[in-house]
Amino acid sequence: MKQITGGELKAASLEQLKAYCSDLREEIFRTVSVCGGHLSSNLGTVELTIALHRVFDFPRDKLIFDVGHQCYAHKLLSGRAGAFHTLRKRGGISGFPKRSESEYDCYDTGHAGTAVSAALGFAKARDLKGEDYEVIALVGDGSFNNGLVYEALNSIKILHSRVLIVLNDNGMSISPTVGGMHELLGEMKGEPPLEDVRVFERFGLSYRGVVNGNDLSELLPALEEAKKQLRKGSVLLHVSTKKGQGYAFCESAPVETHGISPKEKQKEYNEALGEELCALATARPEIVAVTAAMTDNLGLRPFFDRFPERAFDVGICEEHASVLCASMAAAGMKPYYAIFSTFLERAFDEIIHDICAQNLPVTLCIDRAGVSGADGETHQGVFDLSFLSFIPNLTVAVPKDIGELRAMLRLSADFRGPLAIRYPREGSEGEIPELEMGKFEVLHSTMSDIVVLAAGERCLNLAREVQNRALCEGMDFTIVNARFLRPLDEELLLSLPQSTVVTLEDNALISGLGDAVARFYRMHGIEKRVLNFGFDDRFLPHGEPRGLMSEFGLDPEQILEAVRSAYAGR
Amino acid sequence: MKQITGGELKAASLEQLKAYCSDLREEIFRTVSVCGGHLSSNLGTVELTIALHRVFDFPRDKLIFDVGHQCYAHKLLSGRAGAFHTLRKRGGISGFPKRSESEYDCYDTGHAGTAVSAALGFAKARDLKGEDYEVIALVGDGSFNNGLVYEALNSIKILHSRVLIVLNDNGMSISPTVGGMHELLGEMKGEPPLEDVRVFERFGLSYRGVVNGNDLSELLPALEEAKKQLRKGSVLLHVSTKKGQGYAFCESAPVETHGISPKEKQKEYNEALGEELCALATARPEIVAVTAAMTDNLGLRPFFDRFPERAFDVGICEEHASVLCASMAAAGMKPYYAIFSTFLERAFDEIIHDICAQNLPVTLCIDRAGVSGADGETHQGVFDLSFLSFIPNLTVAVPKDIGELRAMLRLSADFRGPLAIRYPREGSEGEIPELEMGKFEVLHSTMSDIVVLAAGERCLNLAREVQNRALCEGMDFTIVNARFLRPLDEELLLSLPQSTVVTLEDNALISGLGDAVARFYRMHGIEKRVLNFGFDDRFLPHGEPRGLMSEFGLDPEQILEAVRSAYAGR
Repeated sequence: MKQITGGELKAASLEQLKAYCSDLREEIFRTVSVCGGHLSSNLGTVELTIALHRVFDFPRDKLIFDVGHQCYAHKLLSGRAGAFHTLRKRGGISGFPKRSESEYDCYDTGHAGTAVSAALGFAKARDLKGEDYEVIALVGDGSFNNGLVYEALNSIKILHSRVLIVLNDNGMSISPTVGGMHELLGEMKGEPPLEDVRVFERFGLSYRGVVNGNDLSELLPALEEAKKQLRKGSVLLHVSTKKGQGYAFCESAPVETHGISPKEKQKEYNEALGEELCALATARPEIVAVTAAMTDNLGLRPFFDRFPERAFDVGICEEHASVLCASMAAAGMKPYYAIFSTFLERAFDEIIHDICAQNLPVTLCIDRAGVSGADGETHQGVFDLSFLSFIPNLTVAVPKDIGELRAMLRLSADFRGPLAIRYPREGSEGEIPELEMGKFEVLHSTMSDIVVLAAGERCLNLAREVQNRALCEGMDFTIVNARFLRPLDEELLLSLPQSTVVTLEDNALISGLGDAVARFYRMHGIEKRVLNFGFDDRFLPHGEPRGLMSEFGLDPEQILEAVRSAYAGR
Repeated sequence: MKQITGGELKAASLEQLKAYCSDLREEIFRTVSVCGGHLSSNLGTVELTIALHRVFDFPRDKLIFDVGHQCYAHKLLSGRAGAFHTLRKRGGISGFPKRSESEYDCYDTGHAGTAVSAALGFAKARDLKGEDYEVIALVGDGSFNNGLVYEALNSIKILHSRVLIVLNDNGMSISPTVGGMHELLGEMKGEPPLEDVRVFERFGLSYRGVVNGNDLSELLPALEEAKKQLRKGSVLLHVSTKKGQGYAFCESAPVETHGISPKEKQKEYNEALGEELCALATARPEIVAVTAAMTDNLGLRPFFDRFPERAFDVGICEEHASVLCASMAAAGMKPYYAIFSTFLERAFDEIIHDICAQNLPVTLCIDRAGVSGADGETHQGVFDLSFLSFIPNLTVAVPKDIGELRAMLRLSADFRGPLAIRYPREGSEGEIPELEMGKFEVLHSTMSDIVVLAAGERCLNLAREVQNRALCEGMDFTIVNARFLRPLDEELLLSLPQSTVVTLEDNALISGLGDAVARFYRMHGIEKRVLNFGFDDRFLPHGEPRGLMSEFGLDPEQILEAVRSAYAGR
């Protein structure tokens, strides 16, 4: 689409603004259809974004997106229309706000609940520096369940700096929003609207709402009014929008059209999670499942349908979900907590303090591990092996395919300690093996003096690819499925005759499997040449997973070169 | 004191109960005077604990303490009076709830905000298993600022299980409690009490209060009433107590008497933090300081006094504090975030997602690193080097004494990236050296083929101790102050002529300095014998720091034995 300039937007008639909204929707729909990305959330906030750009003066004023699932229209309105076809491609436009991309993006987001804190930080800095601009946090109602938002609201009166919080209430947080705050917001939207609730006032916010966020004629005056009020103090503007607005099939299926993948999918690991948990739970009444607002994306829908009384979506509350699992385990239940790798970082303290320090039988089902690709820095699952590597009492498993995930889940049912199983989104089914906790598997055995230990499907595929190329050059190596980071298979490691050990993991190179294997040999005084491959000490941007792997440390040619060197005795 | 039995407590007259309260206070005061521990918080909740034990039936009913700073009277009432003189000693009574210690302790705590989540987990498990008991969470008003408590409150309506939350409102969270929720609770305690606030009702809690929690004649009927109401649904009982109750000097100085250390103290690192920040901030208006409810314990009082407009205590909100720092940095400020090592785990995601992914110049001043000793598992600062080891863009420094902390802080002022400085509570002053980011320091150079790289004051002292003993046996080694984990001093590591490299760190052995040094040599294809000493793969219990270090992996004799072996060429 043609770039709409700030001048054009400021001068446009209401009719013209509506036409811009249509243009933006079309462009978003067209681009997401090709590139993938977040669809319904971006369609729902087109009018709101137009209105914000009309009423405020960006980039002088600061607009901070919570999560960032709703920043496409903003990108299109801030000089990036021409580049928008590169959405989510390596080197192209990111699907999330990025300071490095534009001065219109003042703060990077990706995880839920940071925007109010960040807005307060900007506002405080503005006041301390004697500058003059407005700060707006655009936050979804899903994030309003998150403790971080509450912590920020709680400190508005402490910080004495003015911010405008636009609460974009569409009733969704990927899964439908749940909980006490959701019910409260619902009553505020009701007819007649709830009058006596002054919760937000007590936290130092003037409450205004509810405004129809898909109707510019309501929205524009409400925003103008909020802007005036903002000169006197912080304001919460409660806006109701429809996720997927403008496309009937998106409106009617907001969960399914929240995120769109452009390519045909492989089989998903999460389907196996749902199936196996259902099978296990039939015979075991102590099994419960917990998610933080991601029932469908994690494959838990069948479990939620079959065992509603044992299935808990607590909203975007990763910390609370962890403690809930720990305490249910302490009281005799067997909880499974499914979560994306990157969001598990939010529950890091609770994994240590509540689950592992008490050695409780909670199973963490860690989805989207490794490179997640097009979502970029904030969504890559490349730190989990590192941050789980040193937690006492924890067992950490990395299945080689979906069948092995099934086997691990079956094994987990009688396992008495904390267990983490990390796996990518997609892969191949494979067979369901017999396996023991902490035991590796030799997949290919040779007389060569080189052994490759690879963790997970992607790295085993990489090992096989390198092997095929090595065979063409008359070289070979043993391949081991290193399916446990903790504990390592010490017996197997001790028995390996090879003098060169190569490790492959789709995780940060630092503090993952490679370090663990090298440490093991070091502690046992065994001399091996250990060569580690994993991700560089950099944040991985958005791009195509395979390309990112090559570029950031898991390049088949480099691994092959290491094999060549070992063959040459170098 | 003589053990008060459950039977005695249930049968006692009001006068007798008051006498028990005096006995408990005396015993707590006497024991803490000798053993150290949490004083004022425990003195303030004596009546409340007596009343809970009178009205409920422990251990059948479940009592979950938030943080656990207030569990001494409970321990004394549940069969542990005879052992109480061993408080906080290795193998003795823990200062926090411990399942391993008594069936009366059903859930371990130590960090703030977990109790409501944990109570809901127990209640849900009870209902699913068809059991019959009550669950009580005892939570301080300080924790009510924490996002985790809000996440739990938000899910009461989702979970449909009854819990009693006793809000122990003493206006303190180590530092005085702050924020919107605090003001709201204050109004609820006012005369006349606020009537129209139904915040808690909207989250599914019947609100009852405010009750004088230091007056048994008010407290007992209120608890009986709450217990009855609990049969119908969740209840919040708002109790007002006085921290330090019964000892005038504790009542008047609740911050100072929150925690008591029995021994004479060395100089504290945190004093240097306050002094240096004040000196830097005088010339640099961009410097701000942030704490999560620990102004005094972190040495920030002088800064708060001198620069109140640039000093922010946001309450027990470690996540929000991190995002606030990141965003202020993005807006041109230079934030210093002081925090205890173990509590920094709560901000793990925000360190990655907000501070480091955006490469923002936030300085983390990490106090109580290493063994903190008598507080036990939940307060040891032994994971920070591990969980900071793999975060891109982050520099991690470990000063060798207070003077070096000063030098690092001075260096930090012009440093443009995220920086973490970790240090213990106490140590020696030392000189203020010239130093460069990422440069180690050779402290003692010998012709021996062994070099010891030690991080931080305790490990350098350990190195010197081992050296003194080695010298008696005619052995010596070079000692290097390994004062940066990230980046390592590559130039120095490459230039070291010694073939045996020993690393010492008061951190988990896994994923810390030892792994980093070994990885460096491995990646460079340099053959060294690298021997690592740090903490075992276990949680460190409470005890005396020096003894814990020896017992859990930093034993001078073992290190000396490694030196002997290297000398003998073994």
